[in-house]
Amino acid sequence: MSDLTPAQVDEFVAATFPAAYAEMMRCEEIGDGFAVARWTYDPTQLRPGEYISGPRLFGLADLAFWFATFTVNGLEAMAVTSEMSIRFLRPAQHGDLLARAELESITRRRIVGSVRLWIDGSPDRLVAVAQGTYARP
Amino acid sequence: MSDLTPAQVDEFVAATFPAAYAEMMRCEEIGDGFAVARWTYDPTQLRPGEYISGPRLFGLADLAFWFATFTVNGLEAMAVTSEMSIRFLRPAQHGDLLARAELESITRRRIVGSVRLWIDGSPDRLVAVAQGTYARP
Amino acid sequence: MSDLTPAQVDEFVAATFPAAYAEMMRCEEIGDGFAVARWTYDPTQLRPGEYISGPRLFGLADLAFWFATFTVNGLEAMAVTSEMSIRFLRPAQHGDLLARAELESITRRRIVGSVRLWIDGSPDRLVAVAQGTYARP
Amino acid sequence: MSDLTPAQVDEFVAATFPAAYAEMMRCEEIGDGFAVARWTYDPTQLRPGEYISGPRLFGLADLAFWFATFTVNGLEAMAVTSEMSIRFLRPAQHGDLLARAELESITRRRIVGSVRLWIDGSPDRLVAVAQGTYARP
Repeated sequence: MSDLTPAQVDEFVAATFPAAYAEMMRCEEIGDGFAVARWTYDPTQLRPGEYISGPRLFGLADLAFWFATFTVNGLEAMAVTSEMSIRFLRPAQHGDLLARAELESITRRRIVGSVRLWIDGSPDRLVAVAQGTYARP
Repeated sequence: MSDLTPAQVDEFVAATFPAAYAEMMRCEEIGDGFAVARWTYDPTQLRPGEYISGPRLFGLADLAFWFATFTVNGLEAMAVTSEMSIRFLRPAQHGDLLARAELESITRRRIVGSVRLWIDGSPDRLVAVAQGTYARP
Repeated sequence: MSDLTPAQVDEFVAATFPAAYAEMMRCEEIGDGFAVARWTYDPTQLRPGEYISGPRLFGLADLAFWFATFTVNGLEAMAVTSEMSIRFLRPAQHGDLLARAELESITRRRIVGSVRLWIDGSPDRLVAVAQGTYARP
Repeated sequence: MSDLTPAQVDEFVAATFPAAYAEMMRCEEIGDGFAVARWTYDPTQLRPGEYISGPRLFGLADLAFWFATFTVNGLEAMAVTSEMSIRFLRPAQHGDLLARAELESITRRRIVGSVRLWIDGSPDRLVAVAQGTYARP
């Protein structure tokens, strides 16, 4: 599975989940047990304060996690999130959003992982962290 | 604050957070310590399996919670989510999505509440539950 | 299952989980889809600041939730927590601790519920709230 | 702060939180932005199934996280947990329990981190993972 490329992931998303593709979320990087997703900044999509919204952060975290499960399950549309918790750490502003998901545990039924999010160019200033569970199909 | 109407809330959202308004999320009901939000079903926005996506559920939960904080803070754009955890219970399909947020604790700095989500017509079959914290501005 | 009494629950705990029983945690009330657990105040068990510790709050929340699952599963020792999130709202001090768990969703594999915790005599000043998932055996 | 030793941490715990010390939880390792805590296996403390209990796992995770905050705050008794979510991955059995906490974000008011837990000798088979927030005193 480690041979998946970001282009293959994007093509799969465009085919199976066109709404996410249309929202300018893409796979940036994928490898053994991890994936990085990018949301291209769009000033028409901001919440009050010109912040990137919490649901946008959650959505990119969830997508990066889904991509990371592909390294275990293959390109599998029907893996679904069981639960996720997210902490918002500082305003997310003025740039593309990146989310890196890393798998922490893989059992027969469940995959557990963590996600870190930051604005492009400021990887040391995380804007959110999340942890959650995917059910295996 | 208990005199706020759903129409006033929608007008405030349209003015301060037009992207949420454009995504067809509205205030359905608001009263002392609670609020209900509705997302009008849009078949172009589904994830694989024709399910309403997890981020959509999170987004409506977060919005309902924000509305509920208005009953404490007034119409305040800058209340922000500190953290939220969400459990996805069953596929969300084939209808409008409703989210009811109830406040459980109000202290000087924080508001904690819970949210239940269901498909219109099936209030006994919750599709997700969430719990989280808003920071007061 | 709604005929279970607190005394039956305590007897079951004493037999199957003696360490919890020895820590002075008891069933206070049990009924359809809910249970209340009590921890008798013990000043030798406090964390710095003379607060009841976070793990003690988590432990009583988890126990109350377990009791509430008995109303669905019967007296079943092997139901296990899958995940739980907890928010600490204010210092827990100077009295017995109470935790009330309510079930929110029961599906074939999982039971999801919420828990509220307070100091005896101050039910309106919650010291913590939690939400989580039990796996059905 | 990185000069703290496990012995100094244990001495501090024994002085300020004797109940935790009495429960055989110790600092195993501490360094820049991380700490490891150990619970010495005690067969009288198990839950049904001879598993180490969920609250014990939560308690050790919380303690390891507290130790890790010492690398930022110094030996500070009054840092308190704001919220924590924990996922239980597999039965925790038959050995000492270890918890490694790593700080992910340090801001003026809050410290966010993650914790991994395993049975001594099986670091690749995590028994639980957690993520949470400490409020800075």
